Amino acid sequence: MNFELWLNNKVEIVEKALKDNFTKNDNKQKIIYESMEYSLFAGGKRLRPVIMLGVNEIFSKNYKNVLPFACAMEMIHTYSLVHDDLPAMDDDDYRRGRLSNHKKFGEATAILAGDGLLNMAFEIMLRESLKIDIDKELLIKAMSIIADSSGTEGMIGGQVVDMFCEESINDISDLEYLQKHKTGAIIRSSAVVGGLLGGATDIELKAIEKFADNLGSAFQIQDDILDVEGNAEKLGKPIGSDEGNNKKTYVSMIGLEEAKKLQEKLTNEAIESLSIFGDKSIMLIEMCKYLVKREN
Amino acid sequence: MNFELWLNNKVEIVEKALKDNFTKNDNKQKIIYESMEYSLFAGGKRLRPVIMLGVNEIFSKNYKNVLPFACAMEMIHTYSLVHDDLPAMDDDDYRRGRLSNHKKFGEATAILAGDGLLNMAFEIMLRESLKIDIDKELLIKAMSIIADSSGTEGMIGGQVVDMFCEESINDISDLEYLQKHKTGAIIRSSAVVGGLLGGATDIELKAIEKFADNLGSAFQIQDDILDVEGNAEKLGKPIGSDEGNNKKTYVSMIGLEEAKKLQEKLTNEAIESLSIFGDKSIMLIEMCKYLVKREN
Repeated sequence: MNFELWLNNKVEIVEKALKDNFTKNDNKQKIIYESMEYSLFAGGKRLRPVIMLGVNEIFSKNYKNVLPFACAMEMIHTYSLVHDDLPAMDDDDYRRGRLSNHKKFGEATAILAGDGLLNMAFEIMLRESLKIDIDKELLIKAMSIIADSSGTEGMIGGQVVDMFCEESINDISDLEYLQKHKTGAIIRSSAVVGGLLGGATDIELKAIEKFADNLGSAFQIQDDILDVEGNAEKLGKPIGSDEGNNKKTYVSMIGLEEAKKLQEKLTNEAIESLSIFGDKSIMLIEMCKYLVKREN
Repeated sequence: MNFELWLNNKVEIVEKALKDNFTKNDNKQKIIYESMEYSLFAGGKRLRPVIMLGVNEIFSKNYKNVLPFACAMEMIHTYSLVHDDLPAMDDDDYRRGRLSNHKKFGEATAILAGDGLLNMAFEIMLRESLKIDIDKELLIKAMSIIADSSGTEGMIGGQVVDMFCEESINDISDLEYLQKHKTGAIIRSSAVVGGLLGGATDIELKAIEKFADNLGSAFQIQDDILDVEGNAEKLGKPIGSDEGNNKKTYVSMIGLEEAKKLQEKLTNEAIESLSIFGDKSIMLIEMCKYLVKREN
């Protein structure tokens, strides 16, 4: 199968699952659903769900079992963007080429919509776990991995470091700490849960972790590169914002050329980690190549 | 056993469990733990955990099994207060007699601390569920009930109505809708999960729901009454704030005397709901009486 077809198919599956799992009501509090939908269906790449599905398919044909978890990852990712854009945080007026949530719905609604998306991620996983024909202990383990990755020792912790600890980012290992938490943690858990629920062995899960960690880092470096030499229209946001905000990035710390070399090295290591899966990982390998060539 | 002793014992158990389950690290993001601790250990009444333990004890002697869930409820309750106090929401500078979280740590940290507490609630429940010797499906069901109660059809939904739909609160049934969601939902789930994990039957769970719903309403009315005739020092906040904010309350809608009558009726119904448990519910009955006589 052609990679582009494969990717489009995965994204379609995720879009449909998100629509199916996003439960809303036409009641007094309906504004919260409008606000949550606005950000959840804003043309995101669905990277984390696609990684989960892609890893899962190495082990299992029954992708429907992981869809609630894939949806949860996208909701967690989306809530983090809604809260990060708030005036008290990064104060961003635009996201994906349109008004950020608080600019459209006001700050209070944006705070509550973020809370609602994080909460709904767990609502969906727990509700669907009661129906899925997988050992319940394994399902709890999967949810536990996801919860840990989005918490204060994962994504939230990374956002704290990004917001308040700029002065503690002095070398590349500090930057890696930030990246590993802020964006890497939920990319890793997406991949691991895809494998775990597919029945991966411990050795296979170790390979998946390594794949996801390298891919996550390469992905972040690509973000930093695009902020310097990307196309504002394709990105849906102005370029040069990192430099304008004095943000420490891979590009600002090691320069554009070194950043590109590091990105290539990490991408190759991600691909290398998949070697134990042989032909079954062809699409994931294509995805690695695709993600570092992306323009948005 | 004397009720006061019973209550103090329960609160002590909860305090210890919260300290044990609140995992923190002395790392780059440690400010988030300070902020979360500041609000979590601010002298709250621990009402929801105590209700959960009190209901559980009707059915089981093994209260340790429910402690992770009791801690989760308190974290969910605390995060809702941290976010509700934010400038974009109720804009409260004080909470429980001291600076609100954002006044102490700044808005960005308060937003992230709230996120962190909600996330940690699920981290704890999921991690501990892997260790507890109770049927895993029942544990997932308990977490699912909690997640639903704190979401957009529960607590968050109630906060949305409270923030944006004042004009839609026209009669006592509208006010009940608000209360049932904003404060009632997680009081109910605390009670239900206490019963469920203790092994309560469906009929018993129905009685517990009725008890919790009536108690939750009576509790809310007491809050409204205290805002009119309470003691600012004991409350840790100024009185008259509801009237100052033009908030619709039971007192503003039906008057102080009628509110007191309704509160008494609901308290009696809460106590009546417990009758099927006979002597085993003595302490819960005492708690109902205590909660409507409270001064803070």
